[in-house]
Parts: sequence; C-alpha cells; structure tokens
Amino acid sequence: MAVQLISPRSEDLHVVAGVRIGVAEAGIRKAGRKDLSVFLLDEGTNVAGVFTQNRFCAAPVQVCREHLAGGRNIRALVINTGNANAGTGADGLARARSVCATLARQLGVEPTQILPFSTGVIMEPLPVERIEAALPAALADVDPSHWLRAAEGIMTTDTLPKAYSRQIVVDGAMVTITGISKGAGMIRPNMATMLGFLATDACIAPTVLQAWAAELAEGSFNRITIDGDTSTNDSFVLMASNQAGNVEVTDADAPSAKALKQVLLDVARQLAQAIVRDGEGATKFITIHVGGGRTTAECRQVAYAIAHSPLVKTAFFASDPNLGRILAAVGYAGILDLDQTRIELFLDDVHVATSGGRHPAYREEAGQRVMRQSEITVRVELGRGQALDTVWTCDLSHDYVSINADYRS
Amino acid sequence: MAVQLISPRSEDLHVVAGVRIGVAEAGIRKAGRKDLSVFLLDEGTNVAGVFTQNRFCAAPVQVCREHLAGGRNIRALVINTGNANAGTGADGLARARSVCATLARQLGVEPTQILPFSTGVIMEPLPVERIEAALPAALADVDPSHWLRAAEGIMTTDTLPKAYSRQIVVDGAMVTITGISKGAGMIRPNMATMLGFLATDACIAPTVLQAWAAELAEGSFNRITIDGDTSTNDSFVLMASNQAGNVEVTDADAPSAKALKQVLLDVARQLAQAIVRDGEGATKFITIHVGGGRTTAECRQVAYAIAHSPLVKTAFFASDPNLGRILAAVGYAGILDLDQTRIELFLDDVHVATSGGRHPAYREEAGQRVMRQSEITVRVELGRGQALDTVWTCDLSHDYVSINADYRS
Repeated sequence: MAVQLISPRSEDLHVVAGVRIGVAEAGIRKAGRKDLSVFLLDEGTNVAGVFTQNRFCAAPVQVCREHLAGGRNIRALVINTGNANAGTGADGLARARSVCATLARQLGVEPTQILPFSTGVIMEPLPVERIEAALPAALADVDPSHWLRAAEGIMTTDTLPKAYSRQIVVDGAMVTITGISKGAGMIRPNMATMLGFLATDACIAPTVLQAWAAELAEGSFNRITIDGDTSTNDSFVLMASNQAGNVEVTDADAPSAKALKQVLLDVARQLAQAIVRDGEGATKFITIHVGGGRTTAECRQVAYAIAHSPLVKTAFFASDPNLGRILAAVGYAGILDLDQTRIELFLDDVHVATSGGRHPAYREEAGQRVMRQSEITVRVELGRGQALDTVWTCDLSHDYVSINADYRS
Repeated sequence: MAVQLISPRSEDLHVVAGVRIGVAEAGIRKAGRKDLSVFLLDEGTNVAGVFTQNRFCAAPVQVCREHLAGGRNIRALVINTGNANAGTGADGLARARSVCATLARQLGVEPTQILPFSTGVIMEPLPVERIEAALPAALADVDPSHWLRAAEGIMTTDTLPKAYSRQIVVDGAMVTITGISKGAGMIRPNMATMLGFLATDACIAPTVLQAWAAELAEGSFNRITIDGDTSTNDSFVLMASNQAGNVEVTDADAPSAKALKQVLLDVARQLAQAIVRDGEGATKFITIHVGGGRTTAECRQVAYAIAHSPLVKTAFFASDPNLGRILAAVGYAGILDLDQTRIELFLDDVHVATSGGRHPAYREEAGQRVMRQSEITVRVELGRGQALDTVWTCDLSHDYVSINADYRS
C-alpha cells in the first residue's frame, strides 16, 4: 500500500549510454523470482560509492569499499536479493569475493573491477553456487533499456519498483540521469540507503563524482527513515559513463555543474522518497521540517526523534491529532538547553502550539483535517537560531508489524 | 496481556508508618474512574525526587522541582491521571500551582509542601476545578492500608496495578518498604519512569536519600524501555518517614546501609520491570545484557539500540529467530570503532553468533525454542573491555499499534 507512488513505466526511463543491465533468476531464497541483476559499465565510466555506517557492515559492503579504493575502473555491478551476506564473518567475505571472481572471468576483467551488492536475510550463508550458475543468464539478458527490470530485480519487501529519470542540457550537451532504488524496512540510512544506483552519461571528474556521491546521499537517502534501523548493507552508487559529450565537470562550483548536481539531487531525492512512500505498512508520507536551530545537526536530531517515535507514528496511522506526542519527542531529542517556551508547532498550515503550549486559536477539527491526508508536513520551530533541516518518514501501522513478524515465513 | 505479571494482593503490601493514602473519582477524562490519589506524609518525612530529562517537561514536574528545592518538608503528594498537564505553557503551571494551593489550604500547610503529579494526554488544559472539587473525597478516604487503591488509582493504559513491598531488619529495627508504579507506553525513562512512588519508614538522612533516589532510578526505571519515548512527566519519588526506629542512615557505605539500599533497589526494579511486563501490547519480557564493553555507557547504548529496534521487537513478537537483526542493531548503536569480528551473541544458553558470524554449531531449532518463551535473555559480548549493563524491554505487537492508534478514542 504505497503512498502516492506509482510504478514507473519503462518508456519514461531514459537509457544511459555506457550502461547495460541484465537480470536473471538464481533461486536464492525463493524460486521464480528475478533475484540477480548485473550492471555492465563501458570502459571509461567513473564510479563513486557511499556505504552504510553500520559497524556490522555486510561482506559485500566491505568488498565494495576495497575495490573502489583499489583504483581500478569498475566495469560491473552484481546485485542479489534474498540474502544480505551480513553477519557471516570471514566465510561471507570469501563468498562475496567468489562471485566477483566468477563474473570477472566471464567478462575478461579483474575481480577488483566488480562491485557486489546483497540484500535480504542476515546471518545466513550466501548460496554462491546458485548465483554463479545464474550469471550467464543475466549476462545474456543485458540491454541498455533494462532499467525497470533491474528496479524490479532488486526488490525485497518493496511493493513497487522505484526508478526515476531526468535529462538536462549541460554546456550544450544533453545529459541523462537514471536511477533505481529499493528498500522498505530496516531503513534509517546512515551514509546511504539500502540500495540506490544512479547512472549518468555526463562527463564528471572522479574527485567531483566522489564528493557529489556523498552530498547526494546526505541530501536524499540520509534524510529518510522508516523504522530507525540502519541496515548492514546500505549502498549508494553514482556512475558516470562520460559519454554525453559535455565538457568534463572539474569545478563543482561552476554554474553548469551546480545545475547538473541539482538534477542529480532531484533524482536521488525521488528515489529516496519512493522508499518512504513504499515503507513497510506505510499509509502516510510525512515531511518533517525543523527550523530555528543553532545547527543543522540539532535540527536533524529533533526531526529524527519525531520521525522515530512509535507514538507519533501510530498517531499518524490513526489520523489522530494527538500532537502533544510531537512536543514530547522534541523534548527528548537531546538538546539539553532547549527552551520549551520558544517552541512553535505547525501541521501543514495549522498553527498547533505556540510558546510551548497549545495555540489559543487551535481547534482539534483543524488538526484532524490535516491528519486525514495521505501527505502531511510537520514543522517545528526551535527559536534558537537560523539552521534548518528536513527528514522524510512514514507512519507505523499494523501492516508494519505483520510484515516484519512474517518476513522469513 | 501482561507478561508473567499478576495483580498484587492488598494483604501483601505492608503499611508504611507515616504514610496514608486516599483515592477519589474526579471525572478528569472519563466518569467512574478513580483518577485522583493523595499521599499524606507525617511531619518528619524526608522526600527525594528524580524527574524526566525531557526538555518539554510537564508543568507538575516543574512545580515538583521547585517545591523540592524550596527546602520545606513535603507533606502531601497529589496525583491525577487522564491529563498530563504537559505542553500547556504558563497556564498549565498556574493550574498545577492552584491544585497545590487548594490541597495545602485543606491540610493547613504551605503550597510548597505539596508535590503534584499528572499523567495522561498531552497539550490539553488540566480540568483543575474537577480535581479541586474531588480533593475532600480523597482526603476522606485516607488510610495507611490503601497502597493497592493508589496503584489502581494511578493507572492509565496499564492493564494491572503495580505494587511491591518488602521488609528488612536494619540495626535491629524492622524497616518496611512499599512502592507503586504505573506506565505502559511512552516509556523510555530518562532519570525516572512515568510515575514511581516508593516509601519506607526507615530513618535516612536527606543527603543519603537524595543520592539513593538517583541511584535507584538509574538501576531500575532508567534501565527499561517499551517504545523509546521518554515521557514529559516521568517522576520517581522516594519517601522516608523516619518512624522505623533504626539509627539514622548517614553513611551510605555502612554495611547496614548497603543492605537497606539493596532491598530498596529490589523494590524499585520489581516496579520498573512490572511496567515492561505490562508494556502496551507486550507478549514477551526481554532482558538484554551487554558485556565486554569499554564503558558501562557504551554497553547501555548497545542494549538500547537492540531494545528500540522495531525489527528486533517484531521478531520477538513473531517468535522468529531472525537474529541477524540483533547484530544489525549492535552495528548501528554508535560505537564507531567496534570490531564486528569480536562480537558474540547468545539467546539464553544458545550460542548464536561467534566472531561476528553464525556459530557453526548453531541450529535454528535451538533459537526457535528460546524465541517461543515468554521471557528471553539476549546476551551480547563486545570483546572490548570489562564493562557491562542491562536493559529490560518487551516486544512490539499488533496490540501496541492498536492501543496507541486508539489511545484518545
């Protein structure tokens, strides 16, 4: 039951020159599912990655970090669902490396030129034979137009595939950006989301690309939360195939570079917000703006306290304007010298609380009207400074409990 | 559906000399509920309090702090349910003070000798007239034996009253300790729980009493969590009526003092754990031990990350040994230099993970057996040091969502 999210149409997803995608059924967890995807990247593609800050990071995340640090051009991505290859120790690392080696052999490249990604159940051995056996089928399937197939191929508890595409003219050259993402639970990305892949044919210098990967993640995947659980496998990859014919972006502050980055950010945000809209059991899409803080970090801290409060989330689910719960979350967010008499609270255009108490003109019917909507904006003003930040989240419903109580069955 | 918790019997709750309790129906939120309780304390009683660290603390909490700091002997407590008097600004403070003034007049004491407590819905005006009108009925009801009535009188979403009582001989004198608590949601106490009242007739010097109040809260109410929501109204009060005839406790390190403190801690823990057992929708009582940390604080941090993870909590609800979710929570708990290859995980006596991966001898049937129990102990060893800490929590069920989606209806 995704919130205001529709399945993308394949014809709306622009091909990115230099990027081909193939999908296959490896039978990793269940039969009959396209659970294996491969991205092939033309020579000359630059790749930057941002990965989970979870200290229990998965084997493929460790291998990705190694391979990106190794300095060889990345030529392929291999992604499986059904098994996260996390909490699997040294054996898990060996299995992730084995998949890279097998694919590298078939492509005639080095294993360090492959990035592996896994998502699914934690602490179970990766069925590496089944993955390796299905690689030829995935390679036989490759085509530049297969973005939607890949968006479907990386789904786990997602109810809809997530993909988005835009074009922009940069220095007279038409640049294409297309991306996919997945994730619906264990979502509180810290440096990246479950899985997000964004490719452009723009020509972007590697140093700019890496800096942008981090900035894009910060402004999109790192501003969403469903259940506060930072995954072991969060990965966000930005690929630039350098085939659009634009002048290489080397100065991130140039006007054309900024315009390009804004469109990249738009695509990343659409993909990140799609994850929230498809959050496990989600019935509401909530935007939380916190302003008037001394620092962006403290605004974010307050926004996440609200976004993670089970009481706030269940009130949204119930369309119940029990908005004191939001004030309580502001109060325990960890700002030690917060002055409650300066707090203002708005729900969309309704001024709910002023100077730390109920606004005299606030009427429950007005709060009720907003709470019934499927998209709601909460705005908190802290009255301490000029900083602000935004986080996107969803409500907590019966279906969240059902989905996660039954995940493995 | 409380977990291994039964209603206390009045005859098991020892009278505390110097403490009398009365209960009445004020009709604060719903008619026909005993929603107003008064504790009367004999002259000579020392009182210490520990209150919420939520920066959005309720008006009664602010008044309690003032009155305890004022240095006058506290002679009465007045507690209402149905309305938290939080998020109510200056008007809320005036209403809390009005209740104190009215009760003080009836008792012939000063308003600063009264401590007010409120619990219930946030951001609605306290119906002070109804409370004041019911005070005479509460005073007419006072009796030293009314502990169970008070435990019932302070309930909100609790399904059972919570009370516990013990006796101990201190320096040849029989000392009695009786306490009550309430709370089932918005429970992640920070300095104290929703409401906990603990009285003893022991003779304890005020400085020791205040130190002990903080220590008892730390070792009991500050180690529980249901939903991670720190309330605006958390209050824990320790009262010593000084009537037991023991030599005044002035040296907290004396053996008899330590023995007394241990029994006080036992009572506080029973009351705190009762809140978890009666947690909203709880079907499992979970003890989380984290050992091998460098500091107690980091062990607590990891324990709370596990205790707050909706994914871990729903797995417990489902009796599903999806234990990788626990490893994921350990990984995102915030220990930046955590070495995942040193992590050990046990579920009761079952060794689940070793060196950061699945234990070779672990079988899912063994995990399944433990997960089906109503009481479960999770033990995580971090392999970094000697510190340890413990947190108690419950699972996350459909009923939690139902209760909090319907709380005000």
